[in-house]
Amino acid sequence: MSVPKGNCIVAQSGGPTAVINASVAGVVEEASKHSAITGIYGALNGIRGVLLEEIFDLGTEPSGNISGLHRTPAAALGSCRYKLKDLETSRADYERILEVFKAHNIRYFFYAGGNDSMDTADKTAKLAAETGYELVAIGIPKTIDNDLACTDHCPGYGSVAKYVATVAMEAGKDTEALYTTDTCTVLEVMGRNAGWIAAATGLARRCEQDAPHLIYLPEAVFSIEKFVADVKAVQAKLGRVFIVVGEGLKDKNGNYVTTQVGDFAKDSFGHVQLGGVAEMLKNVVELQAGFKCRYVKLGTCQRNAMHFASATDVAEAGLCGRTAVKAAMAGEVGKMVTLVREQNNKKYKCSTGLAALSDVANGEKKVPAEFINKDGNFITDAFREYAEPLIRGEADVQIGDDGLPVYVRLEKHMLEKKAAGYRL
Amino acid sequence: MSVPKGNCIVAQSGGPTAVINASVAGVVEEASKHSAITGIYGALNGIRGVLLEEIFDLGTEPSGNISGLHRTPAAALGSCRYKLKDLETSRADYERILEVFKAHNIRYFFYAGGNDSMDTADKTAKLAAETGYELVAIGIPKTIDNDLACTDHCPGYGSVAKYVATVAMEAGKDTEALYTTDTCTVLEVMGRNAGWIAAATGLARRCEQDAPHLIYLPEAVFSIEKFVADVKAVQAKLGRVFIVVGEGLKDKNGNYVTTQVGDFAKDSFGHVQLGGVAEMLKNVVELQAGFKCRYVKLGTCQRNAMHFASATDVAEAGLCGRTAVKAAMAGEVGKMVTLVREQNNKKYKCSTGLAALSDVANGEKKVPAEFINKDGNFITDAFREYAEPLIRGEADVQIGDDGLPVYVRLEKHMLEKKAAGYRL
Repeated sequence: MSVPKGNCIVAQSGGPTAVINASVAGVVEEASKHSAITGIYGALNGIRGVLLEEIFDLGTEPSGNISGLHRTPAAALGSCRYKLKDLETSRADYERILEVFKAHNIRYFFYAGGNDSMDTADKTAKLAAETGYELVAIGIPKTIDNDLACTDHCPGYGSVAKYVATVAMEAGKDTEALYTTDTCTVLEVMGRNAGWIAAATGLARRCEQDAPHLIYLPEAVFSIEKFVADVKAVQAKLGRVFIVVGEGLKDKNGNYVTTQVGDFAKDSFGHVQLGGVAEMLKNVVELQAGFKCRYVKLGTCQRNAMHFASATDVAEAGLCGRTAVKAAMAGEVGKMVTLVREQNNKKYKCSTGLAALSDVANGEKKVPAEFINKDGNFITDAFREYAEPLIRGEADVQIGDDGLPVYVRLEKHMLEKKAAGYRL
Repeated sequence: MSVPKGNCIVAQSGGPTAVINASVAGVVEEASKHSAITGIYGALNGIRGVLLEEIFDLGTEPSGNISGLHRTPAAALGSCRYKLKDLETSRADYERILEVFKAHNIRYFFYAGGNDSMDTADKTAKLAAETGYELVAIGIPKTIDNDLACTDHCPGYGSVAKYVATVAMEAGKDTEALYTTDTCTVLEVMGRNAGWIAAATGLARRCEQDAPHLIYLPEAVFSIEKFVADVKAVQAKLGRVFIVVGEGLKDKNGNYVTTQVGDFAKDSFGHVQLGGVAEMLKNVVELQAGFKCRYVKLGTCQRNAMHFASATDVAEAGLCGRTAVKAAMAGEVGKMVTLVREQNNKKYKCSTGLAALSDVANGEKKVPAEFINKDGNFITDAFREYAEPLIRGEADVQIGDDGLPVYVRLEKHMLEKKAAGYRL
């Protein structure tokens, strides 16, 4: 198999996860084994760094920094929310990407991200092919939301799942201890359109007494009346109620139950910013069910909780990075690495596969009906079987003498600019 | 030394912590060694359970349940927010407590809680002495707020400190990764009047780059104008801002910056309920500093984070429980166990002491001026030296085959009621 000889670049995009850096470490470790790959570069803040020609040399990082990425959360290269549109509309951007790649003889583009990033990688590769520039683009799946098509699950999900389930268990113990006054708690977790994260908290419920008692996902139509009835029923039975909600709950008309208003109501992709579901439902409980309610909004801490990340997830994220490089060396182009669960095997076993970037870019995987109970307020055993293997094992975290985790920050030795100037 | 022979009761009060159960385990393990203590009882939901004569036998719990309390967060006996007033106003309550104690020959009352609980224990003991009933009341310090007088620090604080510092570190990495769009994050932590918890997040900042960059405590007057200027200055220097706020920020007139409104605006003690500081400041940042801001509200999950609790804290909480029993056996009365830090010793070493319950009941320990920087927006090195030893070591948590912590729930074999009926 003939593959081009040149440099590779790795970039990260979208919301950080506990394990996306492990994927980068996998890329760097594997890439350094192949003579076709001459230099290993990083893009500062995803595709934004490519456009601005803000590129640094990962080969000159102290080796402890690269191995340290396996146990460092967030996005050590820097991430972005810069969305490229189709080849026609955003042609100048795609051309600029290739201009920068050419200037640095970048022949391999490893992009870790969600479906928008897969779309970017796909279109960049297509324009390269059109214009005769030999470029291999391989995607690495990353999203806590677990909503990418073509893969059994996404690196990042297992860790957020383990953490939010643990938080539900622990905050649930609080509600259990103080039920005579603080009867109800609402825990709000991330998940704009897919309820995978909210569903994961159900793993904490080993018996009826355990929290959470009610889980509401964006996939099930949310009704305030039904919600209040559910809450009252649980309180009557157990004396307390612990509720988990995904941030993107929608009513029967498909409208978000809450939307933010004001200058920052949309993110830079034009997505509506959600927030305040928990606070709103706290008020609903207090006014309509008639007992005190607290709420917890985990925000960005949930997707970076490396201190209690899933060892399975960390390992799979590294595997995806290594596999991306191996696929490129095997002559694959325009693919995303996928995680494939072995069927007919009681013991969880996971290997990798490949899917076309375009198939991933245009897909979205919501929580299927068989994972949600008939009442639309909890998970099923089928979901438990799916999710439980993903949260097994505790990531190996280095703790400093000061009692806190030791995470790395890359030195990022920037490359000299070679392409013409450019502004975003 | 002659001490009474009879049963002991242990109770928990107020907000749960990661380690208050470790104190109970310490009491039970030590009490079982002394022949003067015939039975070991627990009160369901603190003093509320005494008043209602809801008492259970801790001696009949499976032994794994008692040892498991060392690694189970929240309040396994159940807690309450029932406040007794002075002996005159609440005399009927205090008499009822003694009535129940007499009915079960309870001669030792171990109460783990904050200053309200120490007050209850103190007054109960005083009424017992007045009426000639031999009762030994010993308090066990417990509060994440770390605001109890007479003790160097409080069990519960080290664990919440370790956890919130870790969250600040991790969520800070998120802000660092996404600063080009999500420039600012506000993390809201507990602490109504004392900023010990917010201050602890400063431990995560090992260098200037690290989060958090700004910390606001209730002890320093909060000014919106100064806040906006601080935020702009950090953003100009680092390109991002990570802010921590205690929930009880007050303006120059001593008024809370935010207070909740509505039916549940006060808790059952009449304390004003605080909330929404982070959400309010997010809006301030977006409107007045002009960049996007996210917020995290940890709520009750912070005080129950046994999955990353401080081993030092867990050990000291157990020590306080054992010491309470030993003090009672040594003839001490009306005392709370305190933690005493050895001075003139570079290596942290902590032993126990005793303080009068009444001294603890009437005191409150705020973060002293030497722990807050001149600008009122960060901690000093003196605070770091104070707090860092308290978060060292990771608690030993049992993880199940399902990848989640295993916490115990007591069986609570209830005693038959012997006192006359009573309603709260």
